[in-house]
Amino acid sequence: MTDNKEYSYTMLAKLLIVFLIVHLLAVITLILCFSSDHEVASAIVVPVSSVWCVGGPRLEQRRCYFRNLCYSFPHDEFVFVRGADSLVQGLPPTGGPLEAPTTERGVSPPAPPPGGNGDFSVSGGVKSDLRGGASVKSALGGGAKRSLRYRGEAVADLSGGVEAHGNTDFHFSYVEIPEAAIRGKNFTSSILPEKMLVFRRFKPDNLMHVLHDDLLPLWATLAELEYAGARDYRVFFADDHDEGDYWELYRVFRSRTHLNSHHPLVKRSLRAEVDKDADLVCFATATVGAVAHTKWYQYGYDRFQGPAADATITGSKIRAFAHFIRKGLEIPKYDIDMPRYGSRVRQKQPYAVLFNRRSDRLILNEVELSFAISREFNLSTVTVSLETHSLSGIIHLLENATMLIGMHGAQLALSMFLPRHSILLELFPYGLPAAHYTPYRTLAHLEGLDLIYRAWENPDPAKSHPHPEYPVHHGGFVLDATRKIPEQQQAEIVSNVPVKPHRCCKDPAFLFRMYQDTVVDLPGFIRTAWEAFTQRQERLKNRKTESSNATAATFSPAEVKNLNCSYRPGKGVFHVDWEEPWNRAFLGGATNGGEFRMRYLVRVQPAGATEYTEFESAETHLDVPAAEDGGGGLASGSGVHFWVAAVAAGDVVGPWTRRPVHCHR
Amino acid sequence: MTDNKEYSYTMLAKLLIVFLIVHLLAVITLILCFSSDHEVASAIVVPVSSVWCVGGPRLEQRRCYFRNLCYSFPHDEFVFVRGADSLVQGLPPTGGPLEAPTTERGVSPPAPPPGGNGDFSVSGGVKSDLRGGASVKSALGGGAKRSLRYRGEAVADLSGGVEAHGNTDFHFSYVEIPEAAIRGKNFTSSILPEKMLVFRRFKPDNLMHVLHDDLLPLWATLAELEYAGARDYRVFFADDHDEGDYWELYRVFRSRTHLNSHHPLVKRSLRAEVDKDADLVCFATATVGAVAHTKWYQYGYDRFQGPAADATITGSKIRAFAHFIRKGLEIPKYDIDMPRYGSRVRQKQPYAVLFNRRSDRLILNEVELSFAISREFNLSTVTVSLETHSLSGIIHLLENATMLIGMHGAQLALSMFLPRHSILLELFPYGLPAAHYTPYRTLAHLEGLDLIYRAWENPDPAKSHPHPEYPVHHGGFVLDATRKIPEQQQAEIVSNVPVKPHRCCKDPAFLFRMYQDTVVDLPGFIRTAWEAFTQRQERLKNRKTESSNATAATFSPAEVKNLNCSYRPGKGVFHVDWEEPWNRAFLGGATNGGEFRMRYLVRVQPAGATEYTEFESAETHLDVPAAEDGGGGLASGSGVHFWVAAVAAGDVVGPWTRRPVHCHR
Repeated sequence: MTDNKEYSYTMLAKLLIVFLIVHLLAVITLILCFSSDHEVASAIVVPVSSVWCVGGPRLEQRRCYFRNLCYSFPHDEFVFVRGADSLVQGLPPTGGPLEAPTTERGVSPPAPPPGGNGDFSVSGGVKSDLRGGASVKSALGGGAKRSLRYRGEAVADLSGGVEAHGNTDFHFSYVEIPEAAIRGKNFTSSILPEKMLVFRRFKPDNLMHVLHDDLLPLWATLAELEYAGARDYRVFFADDHDEGDYWELYRVFRSRTHLNSHHPLVKRSLRAEVDKDADLVCFATATVGAVAHTKWYQYGYDRFQGPAADATITGSKIRAFAHFIRKGLEIPKYDIDMPRYGSRVRQKQPYAVLFNRRSDRLILNEVELSFAISREFNLSTVTVSLETHSLSGIIHLLENATMLIGMHGAQLALSMFLPRHSILLELFPYGLPAAHYTPYRTLAHLEGLDLIYRAWENPDPAKSHPHPEYPVHHGGFVLDATRKIPEQQQAEIVSNVPVKPHRCCKDPAFLFRMYQDTVVDLPGFIRTAWEAFTQRQERLKNRKTESSNATAATFSPAEVKNLNCSYRPGKGVFHVDWEEPWNRAFLGGATNGGEFRMRYLVRVQPAGATEYTEFESAETHLDVPAAEDGGGGLASGSGVHFWVAAVAAGDVVGPWTRRPVHCHR
Repeated sequence: MTDNKEYSYTMLAKLLIVFLIVHLLAVITLILCFSSDHEVASAIVVPVSSVWCVGGPRLEQRRCYFRNLCYSFPHDEFVFVRGADSLVQGLPPTGGPLEAPTTERGVSPPAPPPGGNGDFSVSGGVKSDLRGGASVKSALGGGAKRSLRYRGEAVADLSGGVEAHGNTDFHFSYVEIPEAAIRGKNFTSSILPEKMLVFRRFKPDNLMHVLHDDLLPLWATLAELEYAGARDYRVFFADDHDEGDYWELYRVFRSRTHLNSHHPLVKRSLRAEVDKDADLVCFATATVGAVAHTKWYQYGYDRFQGPAADATITGSKIRAFAHFIRKGLEIPKYDIDMPRYGSRVRQKQPYAVLFNRRSDRLILNEVELSFAISREFNLSTVTVSLETHSLSGIIHLLENATMLIGMHGAQLALSMFLPRHSILLELFPYGLPAAHYTPYRTLAHLEGLDLIYRAWENPDPAKSHPHPEYPVHHGGFVLDATRKIPEQQQAEIVSNVPVKPHRCCKDPAFLFRMYQDTVVDLPGFIRTAWEAFTQRQERLKNRKTESSNATAATFSPAEVKNLNCSYRPGKGVFHVDWEEPWNRAFLGGATNGGEFRMRYLVRVQPAGATEYTEFESAETHLDVPAAEDGGGGLASGSGVHFWVAAVAAGDVVGPWTRRPVHCHR
């Protein structure tokens, strides 16, 4: 018995030891797994930087990927520590700077404004510079000048491609420091091991700018990286703004590493996160340069505002973005049974959302307007404003709205959160032509967003209440406590109806009209609303058939197979045949007849010729006459080459056969 | 006592249970950590694809990142499953194809070769197609044609940018299949969760092509992705070659996921890795499109061969690549004490490497040549050949060689593994001008590779042994068992000295000369070798001073600080001053005198003008005369703008001040 017990003790002890060892190993693994490399290494020797840039010669097409991109708080500059091991790829040539973002090429930089005040920045941070085509009179010897090498120029653009010629605020450049010099001075650095995307916000206090110029480009830039296989980027806003009113939205861009999530950093919060004593903070992996193809509007810095000239953004991408934002804000799928947004919304019936502004640009008969909408369209009407409702709440509400009504203003950018086939009604104060101010109209009309848009302009000065008592930047005439703008200029502003086209953003006539309050003329407004409502009803009716047609019509056939040809002396023709593309079976319809019938294009080129002739065939074969002489040139002794491409529904042409087939008599 | 024991038992049991639970949790964690997502999920429903393309309009500048890119073995095609959730970004417009890689723009496609044989491919896979500027005679109605939409065209290039106009072998395109259709047919797929880079090899049986057209572009493409933060890509060679002789080199591109490493796949090995029953294999993350900027040579498909026109590859990048390959092959740092490569290498004295070929293009007096080199330069001489030595062995050997001698041929591409300031001596058979065939000369002369190159041409037909008895493709006159090429053509070939410029790759006169054996004329060769050797001695002597000068001369000063100006009526000048750039302290030298003295450029522009004048200053201030009238225009009442840029050693100009400073009288 004692023996047995001793035996048991020994066994248990052994088991315990084994388990202890396994346990220890497991804990070590756990620590390795979860801590991995996501800690700030503090005050270590400054690492050597490298950079790999891709993209075309235009700044806004470029991305630069850095290893050990450093940043100096005291000098507010990015620093590149160049040593023998620095790898450098794709930097601009030292001959001169890259092309700055602009839509108008070859234009010389704007002349400084007359009566210049020493600071060119207008609202939005646009200013002039001297790059570009300005002519130079050099006071230097020509010989000395020619050998100059320009470096330290911008290598990428940190904005979402805001169109503002000559604006260098968003250009990214860095200062080089030799590794040897930095070693000599015993510099230290805090290293952030996360992947960091460096971005500059445009105007984080305005919702339209937040969505159009910051969040959408950020989303696309991070999507591009994620598609390439690089996940978990953290965002660093290298601008001089603090978090701002809409930080809730920016915070949606959080990176996850194992169990932690990392929110974006502004300069202040970066400083708080790193070692105070370090001379530099270095990002182990940093990406610089933002996607510029998500914009749909230009704000009128270089010319009058309007849709962005080269916009390629589609509604389906906006919808993917909106989905991302909703998910990031943890907004649940709209559930009209859930008692969350008060009694008016909780009902199961359709509803309209009326945006109002609490402080300016008021709708003076808001309550009547709200009642009129409810009555006319049998919709509940919810009135919301950014001042009094949470963004998440408004976005959640819009997700299932039938109609959104609001004064022209940044909050209408939220219409991207509306469902398909819903209605956006934009109201314009007296004197402002709806056709001139179209950021939301352009948005609503993006292919695939499928919104129904109507503008209503106030035609009646009597129903308009301007505010000459406001300060100038707010649409009034007041310069400061004692002064107003001159009477004559006041009269000019008042008589400027409709407001003449102008540049962004300080035109006093524009501001005067923009900040008017309005009494909405109900019969006129309702007529406009009915137009939209009727269009919606029609769309909903036709929705099913449209979408299936649209899909079938855009699929491309594959290359045809087994292309062959032979000369048939009896008929004097070349006989070409092939088999239908292998994805034919997936494109719907029967092979002959049915939904659509596959056709084929046949290209015929005599050997040695540079011209070719194109035929069409409804079958998978074709007889091409071999002319006896001249003419088609098909008689030439060295033979003929044939290429074939299939044409599917919607006239979509597939690829040509890669290799031609060759025949001769 | 019994109580105590029972107590102990209970304690032990409890401890055991706790440890068991912890153990279990740890094991689960371990499994989760290490297995993660690196298993092939078999035979599941086909996922929906998405694609995000970046880059310019030219195919070789583009990368396309896919989610769920599928591949069909039976049809040998890539498949894109398009559904409502497919995200599509950056595809070419449907109006027509993107520009194919070529250096000569606007050239119409090459006419098919006379006496065409129905297959245009020459060695290297070049063929003609009909894209580009060929004129069309359409046999179709014009109206019908205009509405056609071209899709299914190439979206990227899968090679490293081989210059071959009209070559579509490396174009990447895919076939679209509607999600609905594929669901209807109950298709299944094997999903590979790894990140996959899709590439096509050019000529995996030739070492020059392997290095120049496959490995170097692959390295750069993966480096680009890694810089962007996307590591652990696996490579899929979507070409019709099997692993081939140089697989050892391709295998260097292995991805690591936790404890496993994944070697590249060819079609056959991919097939072996996935479920046989699945209709498609789908890559969860796939990148398509290779870096095209690593090439330094074009092989003469469109024009006579020579250095690539737009080459940007530098020697330092080649060295980084060589380092990567050596590391991948697990070649140790060269240790001349280690008895690894036989007695001739093991000595501590410097040595030369003589490449020979065992089967053709022989050096007939190889032994005498070897002795002569040893005697003249006091070097040991090692003779190696690809047929008899391992690649790793040769690369290891080259790492510390003083001199490499070899006949013109692919193996000389290994000279990229030579150390700095070593010598490459290339031998040319009789009749082949060294100036015409320069892949290795171009390589050796790349900035930063720092090799010393000399070519030696055999001037003496008597010391040359051609092989008319070889088959035509091997430089002889034999067509097949019974036929030879005509006597007259033979005579032409023999009299064609030096060989006239020709296109790649089947010129019989070129091949005839190329496959000659050679008796190297020792005195002539030694003279050439001495030239190189003398240059080497000089370079080694000057190495130190050169490199430090070069480094200091390329650093850019930062923006100047605290730019100010004021008008000084007494002197009639604008006084401008500023502080030196903050990185001045790191750029060496004293502020006044010393290694270099910082200078400054000052740009002056009257407000409203488009012209500016540039001044230079050696101090951190400048007085700019305010002309009374006209002339400089500086008298204009609205004032003057000033910009300043610093100029550091080597005439490197830093960035201009972002905002100008403004002064007026």
